[in-house]
This record gives sequence, structure tokens and C-alpha cells, in this order.
Amino acid sequence: MSLTTTAPARRPALITGFTAPKGFGDATLRDRRADAIELLGGIPDPQLLPALELADATARVLARPGVPALQYSRTEGISPLREWIAAREGVPVERIIITNGGFHGLSLGIQTVLERGDLVAVDNPVFPLFLRGLELSAAQILPIRVGADGLDIDQLAGHLRAGAHPAALYTVPDFHNPTQGTLPAGARAELVRLAEHYGFTVFADNPYRELWYQGGPESTSVFNESDRVIHINTFTKTLGPGLRLGWVVVPAQLAPDIVALRSRQDSHSSTLVQAIVGELLTHDPGLFDTTLGRARRVYRGRAETLVAALEREAPGAFDATVPDGGLFLWPRLTDDALDADRLAADASAEGIEYQRGSFFPSGPGTDAARHLRLAYGHVPEAQLDEAAARLGRALRKQTGL
Amino acid sequence: MSLTTTAPARRPALITGFTAPKGFGDATLRDRRADAIELLGGIPDPQLLPALELADATARVLARPGVPALQYSRTEGISPLREWIAAREGVPVERIIITNGGFHGLSLGIQTVLERGDLVAVDNPVFPLFLRGLELSAAQILPIRVGADGLDIDQLAGHLRAGAHPAALYTVPDFHNPTQGTLPAGARAELVRLAEHYGFTVFADNPYRELWYQGGPESTSVFNESDRVIHINTFTKTLGPGLRLGWVVVPAQLAPDIVALRSRQDSHSSTLVQAIVGELLTHDPGLFDTTLGRARRVYRGRAETLVAALEREAPGAFDATVPDGGLFLWPRLTDDALDADRLAADASAEGIEYQRGSFFPSGPGTDAARHLRLAYGHVPEAQLDEAAARLGRALRKQTGL
Repeated sequence: MSLTTTAPARRPALITGFTAPKGFGDATLRDRRADAIELLGGIPDPQLLPALELADATARVLARPGVPALQYSRTEGISPLREWIAAREGVPVERIIITNGGFHGLSLGIQTVLERGDLVAVDNPVFPLFLRGLELSAAQILPIRVGADGLDIDQLAGHLRAGAHPAALYTVPDFHNPTQGTLPAGARAELVRLAEHYGFTVFADNPYRELWYQGGPESTSVFNESDRVIHINTFTKTLGPGLRLGWVVVPAQLAPDIVALRSRQDSHSSTLVQAIVGELLTHDPGLFDTTLGRARRVYRGRAETLVAALEREAPGAFDATVPDGGLFLWPRLTDDALDADRLAADASAEGIEYQRGSFFPSGPGTDAARHLRLAYGHVPEAQLDEAAARLGRALRKQTGL
Repeated sequence: MSLTTTAPARRPALITGFTAPKGFGDATLRDRRADAIELLGGIPDPQLLPALELADATARVLARPGVPALQYSRTEGISPLREWIAAREGVPVERIIITNGGFHGLSLGIQTVLERGDLVAVDNPVFPLFLRGLELSAAQILPIRVGADGLDIDQLAGHLRAGAHPAALYTVPDFHNPTQGTLPAGARAELVRLAEHYGFTVFADNPYRELWYQGGPESTSVFNESDRVIHINTFTKTLGPGLRLGWVVVPAQLAPDIVALRSRQDSHSSTLVQAIVGELLTHDPGLFDTTLGRARRVYRGRAETLVAALEREAPGAFDATVPDGGLFLWPRLTDDALDADRLAADASAEGIEYQRGSFFPSGPGTDAARHLRLAYGHVPEAQLDEAAARLGRALRKQTGL
């Protein structure tokens, strides 16, 4: 039936500009043992998610007259959920836009703020998937060093004084991914001051914020009070990635643009998921913090277990510290003569999978390649002990000890 | 604290290219009586949606060990759901990509297939929100007449022979929105032949397909067998808009591009919603068709009620026919001297809201402005009778009868 096709399928520049995953997220690396212990992703433990309470909330919202949870809703999100988030963030409800998770918040920010080819300052090392998200705007990147206290504001300020004109900056201020540092209050204020002075937008990506281990989190009010910050958050690490539900705190003047974009993409986040989570959070006002309290204790315990197990199984081989929050350990190899790629390959053969530190640099000048990113959130303590033992055996293949 | 901002906030071309809604979807028109009967949107009746069964399915998926419904999943969608859809569409599962509803499928197609500024042939009259979606690619439009049998393939072929080079074509093949025609089998085959010959992609948008009133739907296999068609569907009109769950049948070679785009936007549709609907559809294999059977009878009954009520309340004023499926009536005013805009304003004052036909043309050459689009799916029959009475009173303000 078909005649000769006269024109081959063309692919638009947006699509041809996408690069294939290399390293982090590269499926070709995933040839692993069936019994492998996977410390790969920042996955919450299923037993710490309120599954039964979500089922109960679902039954209640689906029993409401007219079942509004099954109908269209506003692009910005449904009111009870937005109001709960706005109160927690300390901002007017108009500045909260519901998203399909944290990464979606980033992508909406990228598409709403950036012109194609813009310069964007980014963490170095950086959460690698953000760089893939930047391909939506074919952005150029300006790597900014990340140290023990998060983003190096002095280096950023130097670039700005020297004439760099980023349109935006990306950082993870709390329990940085992968380095685990937290940006101190003074540096937050200075970052916002620079953004307002030089006229760039800060993408403050904060998925781990609620998972602090002691003393509570650093304040984010300086972010929420600036019209140069998009503060991105999500229920992914607290109520479950599978919900695909998050939010952005946006400057008031940006909200209509984000709504205009989203109304042309997927209209709005699932009303059902929004209604379930809104019901969960408001039906029992203590449930969210109770859930988080349990999660914080468990994740901290796992981090301590893993640090102790590394020292027991490979004494002196790693400079590893229990982070202040989040889901990752970022140990550094103390022996500079060790081949970190060979270690990862040997570890895979032993049955432990993790993300190599070399996947995370956004530019030169970091020692990320000497690190390992170990995700422990979803792994029971006995398996963390076994993982450390396997890593120790992999190390000894090089050290011969 | 803040210094002078040196650069005003710039807005990227993508965003500044978005136009404000005019007519359809224009919130400024929504100044209505509190007791207004709204025949505005293609909304399924809540009582026809399987709310209890969805709650039961939720309880089951949230009780599964490890609760995979709350975890990350593949960008393409989860297997049980994709497999159920693939079987129903008669295509390999690799060609099914889960979306956040029908409009999301359109937007993914637009962004994956179109270069900025491309020409796109579109229905005339057309579903107005599609034109807003096209702004994602700043597309130019080539209106193609839609008649009683859907898209006018002869007019399209004439444009193509004369040298028009559309990159894509948009049509609603089944129970066209707004005109209610269905493209016959021969015209479907000819449309696909033209697409393959001239090298454009067909966006076949089919949200109403399952809501046929008698004799079953027209075959879509010619769409699903072509590598020049993206066939867009959704559970919006059958299981509820609030789920935000749909799918696209894509040519095999396009699937990786759509996945690459989505993995940079919102990663994947809610695993929870996918798991709930997958469980609903597979736990009781007869449930979906039973649900649809009931819906088809109710919607057909409402269409018949509304046609009869219009004739009773305003004899001879409308050329109105019961459609073969879907959720809309598209009556034409028989008196060319009537002011259709004044009628809509008078109707609003009487307490009935509908979409004016003048909102739907994509170009000249249609009589759409002489029509009304009346959405009856969610409106009980007594209210449809009252709506017709109010419309009759609004008419008589002009006719004086």
C-alpha cells in the first residue's frame, strides 16, 4: 500500500542534542551478579513509607461525593495539598506549584528560565542527571567547586566578578548529592545576594532536606524570600518515588510562566495522587513527622553501620564519615595508588554495585574520582555488613593484602 | 540586603511565544450564575467511573511485598499496564509508552517530531488546546476542512500536490471534537498513504474512541501499522481525567526519542497510578468493558435526551443529531440571522454555559461559528432538559417569539 517515502524522518534539534548516558545511569554498565547488593540510587526503604495509610487515604478520597479526585484539576495543584506545603515552606500558597517529583521541578525551571545556549553554573561534582536535564535548553555549564560545606561561594563570586554571566545556578544545598555537605547560613545568604545582584536564577534542589539526622535542617527561608530562587522539593524520598509528586516554591512573577508551560505539556499532576497525599497529610497532622522521625533514625543507623563495617572490613582504606542527613555515604580512597575503576569492576564481580565517584564531576579540579557513592537507605544492616565485606575483598585484589 | 539587580529577568523564546487563551479556556469568560448548568468540557460522569474498584485495587497494590508501586519505574511505563494496552491495540509492547493523559501524549509528539517553526496541518475546526500545545514548537498551521466524515482528505491531498510540506498532521479520527464526524476506513488508509508518501507524521488523537454508541468503533489498525502515525489515547474519558494516565502507540523508531525527552522532563508517570490501573484492568478482565458498556448506554441516552429537549424547547431552531459516540452535541443554528455570540451571552444570563462554535476554527471556510458545542456526559437528564429550556429562553430574546 505504501508508496516510496519522499522525506526521511527528521529529528528536531531538541532531540538530536540529547546525549546518551555515560557512567551514571548507563545501562551498559549493568551486567551484575544476580545476588548483587545494590547501593546505587537514593531509594527510600519501602518499610519506611506509609503504604497502609496511603491505602486508607485512597479509600477515603475515592468515597467522596462526586469523586473530585478522578476529575480534572488546576495546573498549579489542588488547594489542600498546596496549602499544607505553603504553610510548611512559609510562603503564600500562590508561590507553590505541584510537580511530578523533584526532577520535574528542575525541568520546568530549566524550560521556563533558560534560553537555548545559556550559561548555567553548576555544582562540581554534580548530580549527573541535572546535566542531562539541561540538554532541554542546550545550556553551557560553568562548574563551581563543591567542598565540605557545599558550593564554594567565593569561587562563584570570582567568576561573576571576572565577567561570567550565568543565567542560572544549580546546587543541592542540604546533604549535597554526592558530597554530603550542607551550605551554611551565611553562604546561602551570600548566594542569594549574588543571584539578585548579577541577575541569575538559583535552582535550589532539595530532595534530601527532610532526612536530617540531628539538630534539624539549615533554614531555607533566605531561598523562599528571594525572587531569584526556585526552591525545588519532592515527596520522593519521604513518601515514595513512585508517587511522582513534588513541588516548587517559585517567585510570584514566575508562576504564570510555569503554569503556561505545564498547561501545554501534561496539564496537571494526577489529581488522584494529589488528593491521596493531601488527605494523608491533613487527616492525621502528625503522621508526616512521625514517618520522618522513624526514617531519620533508620537511615542514620544504616550510615553508622556502613561506616563501621568499612573500617572493620578494610581498615584505613577509606576516609568515611557519617553524613548529617540524606541517603549517601561518600567515602574517599586513602591510597592514591589504587585504581578506582578497577575497584568498581572487582566490586561488581564480588557482588556489590555502587556509583563511581568519577561519574560526578562537572569539570576539572575535584577529587571525586577518588570517592565512591554508596546509597544505603534501602539496604538492611546485615546486607550493609556483607556489602562492606565484598568491597574489602575487591580492595584486596589490588592491595594483595 | 539585596543590591541593585543588574539584569532584569529575561524570559526565553519558548515562554514568550505562548499566547493567552482566547475563547475556549479563557477564564475571563467565566463570570457565570452560581446555578449555571455547565455543558463546557468533555467530562465523564463520576458515577460511571469505577471508584470503589480503584480503591480496592489500590489496597491490593499497596499491600504487595516491597511495595513496588511506591518506587521508581521505567520511563516507558510498567509492564502489566503496557502489556494490557499493547494487546488491546494489537501492537508489540515496545511501541506503547505510558503518558500523563492524552494531552501529554500530544505534547510529547509535538516536542519529539517538530522542529521549531514547522508547518502542521490541523483539523478545521479543531480542538483548540492542540493549537496551544503547538506553541511548544512555534509551529505554523495549515487548516484542513473537517466535514461530516471527519478530515477532508481530498483537500489535504490537494495542498500536498500543490507543494505544501507539513511535518505533521493533527486530527481526531473518532467522534471528532467538536464536529462529531468519524473518518471512514478508506479515508484512514488514504491519510496514512499520504503521510508515508510525503513524509509527515500523523497525530491521531483518539480520546473518545471507546465511547461508541452502537456497532463498535472504526478500525484503527491502519494507524497502528504505520511508522508515520503516533496514535494517542488515554484513560481520561473512561476511568477518569484525574488519574492523568494515557498512552501513545508510537512507531518503533520514535520510542527512544520520546523516552529520551521524558527522562529529561518528569522521568515517568506515577508508578502508583500505573499500578492501580494495571491491577484494575487485569484483576477482573471484564471490568473495563463492563464499565464502558454502562457508560455508552448512559451517554447515548443523554445525547438523545438533549436532542429531544432542544427540539421541544426551541422547535426548528437547531439542526441537531445524536452523535455516534463521544461526549458532545454539535447543533447548528438554522437561522443565519441569529447572533451566535449574543446567544451565548443570553444563555449565560439564563444559566447555561457551553463552548461557542466560534472558538473552534483553525482557519477560514467553516460554519463552526453557527454551531454550539454542548457537553452532556456529566449532566443528568433532568438538568439537560432544564439546560435546553434555558437555551430556548435565550433564543427567544433574539427571535422575540
